[in-house]
Amino acid sequence: MSEKYVYSFGGDYTEGDAGMRDLLGGKGANLAEMIKIGVPVPPGFTITTTACIAFYDNDRSLPPGLEDQVREAMARTEATMGRKFGDRDNPLLFSVRSGARVSMPGMMDTVLNLGLNDETVQGLIKGSDNPRFAYDSYRRFIQMYGNVVMGIEGEKLEVLLEQAKKEKGVKLDTELDADDLKKLVGSLKARVKELTGNDFPEDPYDQLWGAISAVFNSWNTKRAITYRKLNGIPDHWGTAVNVQTMVFGNMGDDCATGVAFTRDPSTGEKIFYGEFLINAQGEDVVAGIRTPQPINEIGRGDSDLPSLETLMPDIYNELVEVYQKLEKHYRDMQDLEFTIERHKLWLLQTRNGKRTVKAAIKIAVDMVGEGLIDKKEAVMRVEPDKLDNLLHPTLDPKAEKELLAKGLPASPGAASGEIVFSADEAEEMKEAGHKVILVRAETSPEDINGMNAAEGILTSRGGMTSHAAVVARGMGKCCVAGCSAVVVDYDNECFKVGDRVFKKGDVITLDGSTGEVFVGRIPTITPQLTGDFATFMSWADEFRKLNVRTNADTPHDAKVARDFGAEGIGLCRTEHMFFEESRIRAVREMILADSLEGREHALAKLKPEQKKDFIGIFKAMDGLPVTIRLLDPPLHEFLPQEEDDIAELAGIMGVSVEALKERTESLHEFNPMLGHRGCRLGIAYPEIYDMQVAAIIEAACDCVKKGISVLPEIMIPLVADVNELKFLKKRSIAICDAAIKKAGIELKYMIGTMIELPRAALTADAIAEEAEFFSFGTNDLTQTTFGLSRDDAGKFLPAYIEQKIFPCDPFVSIDIDGVGALVEIGVTRGRTTRPDLKVGICGEHGGEPKSVAFCHKTGLNYVSCSPFRVPIARLAAAQAAISDI
Amino acid sequence: MSEKYVYSFGGDYTEGDAGMRDLLGGKGANLAEMIKIGVPVPPGFTITTTACIAFYDNDRSLPPGLEDQVREAMARTEATMGRKFGDRDNPLLFSVRSGARVSMPGMMDTVLNLGLNDETVQGLIKGSDNPRFAYDSYRRFIQMYGNVVMGIEGEKLEVLLEQAKKEKGVKLDTELDADDLKKLVGSLKARVKELTGNDFPEDPYDQLWGAISAVFNSWNTKRAITYRKLNGIPDHWGTAVNVQTMVFGNMGDDCATGVAFTRDPSTGEKIFYGEFLINAQGEDVVAGIRTPQPINEIGRGDSDLPSLETLMPDIYNELVEVYQKLEKHYRDMQDLEFTIERHKLWLLQTRNGKRTVKAAIKIAVDMVGEGLIDKKEAVMRVEPDKLDNLLHPTLDPKAEKELLAKGLPASPGAASGEIVFSADEAEEMKEAGHKVILVRAETSPEDINGMNAAEGILTSRGGMTSHAAVVARGMGKCCVAGCSAVVVDYDNECFKVGDRVFKKGDVITLDGSTGEVFVGRIPTITPQLTGDFATFMSWADEFRKLNVRTNADTPHDAKVARDFGAEGIGLCRTEHMFFEESRIRAVREMILADSLEGREHALAKLKPEQKKDFIGIFKAMDGLPVTIRLLDPPLHEFLPQEEDDIAELAGIMGVSVEALKERTESLHEFNPMLGHRGCRLGIAYPEIYDMQVAAIIEAACDCVKKGISVLPEIMIPLVADVNELKFLKKRSIAICDAAIKKAGIELKYMIGTMIELPRAALTADAIAEEAEFFSFGTNDLTQTTFGLSRDDAGKFLPAYIEQKIFPCDPFVSIDIDGVGALVEIGVTRGRTTRPDLKVGICGEHGGEPKSVAFCHKTGLNYVSCSPFRVPIARLAAAQAAISDI
Repeated sequence: MSEKYVYSFGGDYTEGDAGMRDLLGGKGANLAEMIKIGVPVPPGFTITTTACIAFYDNDRSLPPGLEDQVREAMARTEATMGRKFGDRDNPLLFSVRSGARVSMPGMMDTVLNLGLNDETVQGLIKGSDNPRFAYDSYRRFIQMYGNVVMGIEGEKLEVLLEQAKKEKGVKLDTELDADDLKKLVGSLKARVKELTGNDFPEDPYDQLWGAISAVFNSWNTKRAITYRKLNGIPDHWGTAVNVQTMVFGNMGDDCATGVAFTRDPSTGEKIFYGEFLINAQGEDVVAGIRTPQPINEIGRGDSDLPSLETLMPDIYNELVEVYQKLEKHYRDMQDLEFTIERHKLWLLQTRNGKRTVKAAIKIAVDMVGEGLIDKKEAVMRVEPDKLDNLLHPTLDPKAEKELLAKGLPASPGAASGEIVFSADEAEEMKEAGHKVILVRAETSPEDINGMNAAEGILTSRGGMTSHAAVVARGMGKCCVAGCSAVVVDYDNECFKVGDRVFKKGDVITLDGSTGEVFVGRIPTITPQLTGDFATFMSWADEFRKLNVRTNADTPHDAKVARDFGAEGIGLCRTEHMFFEESRIRAVREMILADSLEGREHALAKLKPEQKKDFIGIFKAMDGLPVTIRLLDPPLHEFLPQEEDDIAELAGIMGVSVEALKERTESLHEFNPMLGHRGCRLGIAYPEIYDMQVAAIIEAACDCVKKGISVLPEIMIPLVADVNELKFLKKRSIAICDAAIKKAGIELKYMIGTMIELPRAALTADAIAEEAEFFSFGTNDLTQTTFGLSRDDAGKFLPAYIEQKIFPCDPFVSIDIDGVGALVEIGVTRGRTTRPDLKVGICGEHGGEPKSVAFCHKTGLNYVSCSPFRVPIARLAAAQAAISDI
Repeated sequence: MSEKYVYSFGGDYTEGDAGMRDLLGGKGANLAEMIKIGVPVPPGFTITTTACIAFYDNDRSLPPGLEDQVREAMARTEATMGRKFGDRDNPLLFSVRSGARVSMPGMMDTVLNLGLNDETVQGLIKGSDNPRFAYDSYRRFIQMYGNVVMGIEGEKLEVLLEQAKKEKGVKLDTELDADDLKKLVGSLKARVKELTGNDFPEDPYDQLWGAISAVFNSWNTKRAITYRKLNGIPDHWGTAVNVQTMVFGNMGDDCATGVAFTRDPSTGEKIFYGEFLINAQGEDVVAGIRTPQPINEIGRGDSDLPSLETLMPDIYNELVEVYQKLEKHYRDMQDLEFTIERHKLWLLQTRNGKRTVKAAIKIAVDMVGEGLIDKKEAVMRVEPDKLDNLLHPTLDPKAEKELLAKGLPASPGAASGEIVFSADEAEEMKEAGHKVILVRAETSPEDINGMNAAEGILTSRGGMTSHAAVVARGMGKCCVAGCSAVVVDYDNECFKVGDRVFKKGDVITLDGSTGEVFVGRIPTITPQLTGDFATFMSWADEFRKLNVRTNADTPHDAKVARDFGAEGIGLCRTEHMFFEESRIRAVREMILADSLEGREHALAKLKPEQKKDFIGIFKAMDGLPVTIRLLDPPLHEFLPQEEDDIAELAGIMGVSVEALKERTESLHEFNPMLGHRGCRLGIAYPEIYDMQVAAIIEAACDCVKKGISVLPEIMIPLVADVNELKFLKKRSIAICDAAIKKAGIELKYMIGTMIELPRAALTADAIAEEAEFFSFGTNDLTQTTFGLSRDDAGKFLPAYIEQKIFPCDPFVSIDIDGVGALVEIGVTRGRTTRPDLKVGICGEHGGEPKSVAFCHKTGLNYVSCSPFRVPIARLAAAQAAISDI
């Protein structure tokens, strides 16, 4: 006896179930499962994926035994339906569909209305009492079968339909009547014979064998192979074939077809919600030609059409029973397709319904309340990245939009405003009450105030971790970066996209979640955080093991992040503070001083300012740890670039423009990323770090005196060797201890380091001798591990991702094989020396779900991310912890 | 009974030997060893390092039992010498010296002439018949003891000597007579009493205990502790103390003192060679006040003074016997110090003599011939780095020199020439018959022809692996790099050092082995390679396991390297070829083309040129493998920088200067080192690599047809992910196989990759799926592992090394902990996938002995280095292999 290739389903009988996905494919398993729980599904049978493999092993012929098993299953289907395949009076028709283990939408072939021929079409006329419907079904079947099974180009049969309409002088298919269609059937068959040399098969079983073989063959079309390669689906899986009774919602007024959601997919409310049409096919409901009717009174909305509840109360009640059964069984909101044929309800499909993130949260919370799922499952039900939409304004989906260009979705949210090209102008316009979009080729730290003033930022260069992107995410402000179609012309205060010119003051709209740039102003929708959100997040917090901190440089950002649930600051960058207008002059004086005294003089001016900064941040983070990174970027970043600014500064400093330029030039670096920055500055000019450390600890002491609980963590950046840390730690401890003693209070502080160079990770055991904590700076670690400058990668990284050379942008999602390997080495070696070493991550990856999962798996203590990504990180951490169990 | 703390030596009795270095210190063990082989050494005893530790354990007091053991040893010494310590007629005097396990020169204390007091000085007068000598010894002893043991500042006693001379109205110490010195002794003692409140100790044993304690105490002076920390010497080792009979070469004309080498330290010839002085102290021989006499007739040279051989033939013969014994015993050329006291020969010290590299090779080869050492030992006797001096001209050591500035010793050798400031000018001047030194702030690939034309290169910026340094080493041309004291002013064609101005045409001299820059022309000595060198290197080759290849870009360099023993090319950089005047225009056309067609058009011009290059190199390397790296640097490096050049190119290309500048600007990168270069170019513009691969293989096919044996290895640079290699390898194989088929010949070729990014090393297992060989590019790997640009590191790396934050420049000697760890990971993982993977290194480290040793240990197949370092690498590889056994 041959292997079992065919699994029947129908009525209350099924041989398969949801667990048999590998054998029956996703669709087949699901159909079986629905039957199993008593949902009325048109009966039929599934031919297994093993039959597909056997088909290929058998030189692309149906394997021995298969035909007998199909005939047997057909008999069972006929018995269930009380009708016969190929019957001339009331024939059963079938759909023949592919169904692989995982969905490969549109990749493989389908045949509908199988079983029609010149005889059975008469039966269909008789059964439906609708000759037009019968002939229309017949001509569709011939076209589809001719194309899919017999290999005729679709166009070559479609022309006959066009010809028929032309002959009759009409435009719409629906204007052809039964006779026209009958004639069309004749000419289609003749054309098939002409094109293939074969008659169109009249025997329903011949039709069936052809269709099954065609579906098997479609597993190995070029597009299917490509799709599998791109999606990592093995070629040897094969596809199943589902042969299922056709049911018709368009046989008359006791027929209907519709779609429904078991809850509102947009709000999540527990309302059965759907639309249907009397005497129609499935595609009519979504096609928008006829206006669909509400399924019930509660979901009527503005519609004045009669509902199914009113028109067919018994059927509606049956549908309600079915949906409740399905939702209970699948324990999730379902998206249903149903057809009513001659007042008989059939379910064609059920699947977990797509929903907005707001709905996802409400449904998850409600279902826990209903006892359908537990909290763990609820937490797993929301995609962390989607939370972004809850936290930022979004474009009104109903508004008309004119797309101008597309860049990188660098920071989510949406905003409209007048174009400005300089940071100063952005500030001025904002003060004058305008909303502006700052458009730059790229931004630099000098632009921060302008970025803050703008509603959104658009740059033509730079990637997902460019300055603009990082700062905008930190501010929770929308940003489209690296939009290379936008060519900025500062001199003429305009930008071009192709031939179109946009001037200062013209209005554009950005969607930072998609990277789209639109012409003109588009209304936005501001989200509201609900109680469900808080409940949901509190459940996430119950499961996660990772702490979530934030990257914040100002008391305002710190507060925002704390409100989003941040449990401390993982990265407070001190350099942004240096750019404030009141300070940049002193910063420049310090840099350009050519003696220790000169630097100390300038630093003395900066110290009270820095101290003020830290007091503000400590207050905002009362009771929570705050990691402060000492000065990191190369000094020349702080120097003026424009001629005017240089001249002005020279005047203020009392030196010549030439001297100033010379000094600036001497600070030039070929590769600033790999240059004199981070702790290398701290070692060359210890007085800078001394000032910062003193400011931190004095601020902490002041706070402690005011009853604020402070946990300062001083972080030394860009350490490559433990000796660097040793040198700086010793100085820092001396300063801290003296300040604490002087203040006469108790204060615990820690000194640790960024691990952001491969060498630091590789020698983490030595570094942990000195470091009291590690924070992985995965931005720089990615740059050095790949040898890839994020400022320059824009020229080739997009092509790399498009060509699948890199699976994704390593600056967005951590590269587990390379950068991740170093993180693991760093954690392992660091904890060899110091088993209780506190380890976190403060790169951009700290708020990206896949990276957060990696951090969980690697045993980090916390992730730190920009304020608006804190909820995302919390949820991702919870999901990682749950998946890990 | 207490532990044995004291080990005697003298006459033919010794308790110690050379193996007891840990216990007796280096000096003590060596003194014992000399006695053991019957060399006349002044007798005495060594107090062990364990006594030092016991001293510290005993609150810095001499441990119980020590004094008794000292008295016992003293008795034995007295018996050997037939004189007594503290004897009033003919007293024994002693030196008391420190002696740790390893030499810590000048770090600890010494006391000489111990045992003198008012009574014994009379005995010394009697014994020497020289009151002035006796009182001079006495006053020296008081000053030394007062300072070292009694803690009086040296200056406070020295003033009395000055006062005595002043009073007498003389200037030199030697002008004071016995009476003056006797008086001085009195006033010194009075001053000691005055300053310390204690009498100067008269009792010889009191003096001895004091001196021993002082030496023990000097183990823990601040400078000694610092020295140990810097040199990694453990604090717990302690020092031994050597108490040894004083002998005097200055007691009269039957006394003498001298130094000798058992072979000529400058040529290595087997001639006993030395100098001595009658009636003198050791320091007089080297002080240069009196002209030393030749020790024998054969080494007389130009001297007309009588030799020891003539004056004291019996003593000379004894000395010859001793030196032969010592050389045979120590199996190496010895550097002896001897004293003749009253016609009795004493050896004070023997040690392996310093020698020139030429002598080192001759001595090693001769000693193998003499059966003193075997080849293995001979190979270990020469420091690989020193070979440099054999291969390059050196400055005449006798010439007068005016040092101007000091930079980095970037490429060895010495050269003089007229200053020029541009590469073009260097070429012109060279053609006009001038010798020139090219002086630049830094060099770029555009300067290569000028560098080639110059005798030497001086740059004010850049490190040991800057462009200038790397290229100069490749050319075997001397280079001083990063000489920051030199401020170049191109506009005025001059450079300044402080206030001094040097103009074009002024002559300077460079010493690339020391980094020194001198004013004017200094004669140089051109080395000659001897037959001994060839013999010696052939022995090295017998032992080494590593192959040694060369980095060479031209047939000329390839030939030079092959003559130096290179076994193939490990790195042939194709980009240098692009800079030749005949090509740079086509290269620029290619870069600036904005279409595939445009690039292909330009590439078609370049291909025949590239093919010619490769044919030349394959010919030079007939039978040896040649690894060719495809284009690596970012394209903008090839573009013109100067306004004139840009205008010229724009003219040639028929585009506007603005357009050209815009394109150039668009190629600008923030961090070119981490930018669009290496295989990233090959992926963005596959036609470039296609052209290069075709040129390589077509050249190889042409050579094969001419009977030349070619082993081409195509190397893809800057791979971060296996997918990059996969993409490029597939294209390359197609091109190669087609070309080989077309040529109708047999040709094996390999395709491999540089491992020069941390990610490549970390994912080497995946990369080895595609790569047929690995070559570690440790220059770039060092840059990325440390996050350190070698072009910018000059600003802080020197300070790092000075402050011992880094033990050495990681661009010079491979950083074993970080970069080395990645190399090991890369090798291990690569060979997991492909066990026979050929692995080499082609960074600058390939010619640095410590790095070569690391490569040997890590199991690499070969190192590759610049031609002039090939012999160094061969020797270093041999030594690593021998050390490994």
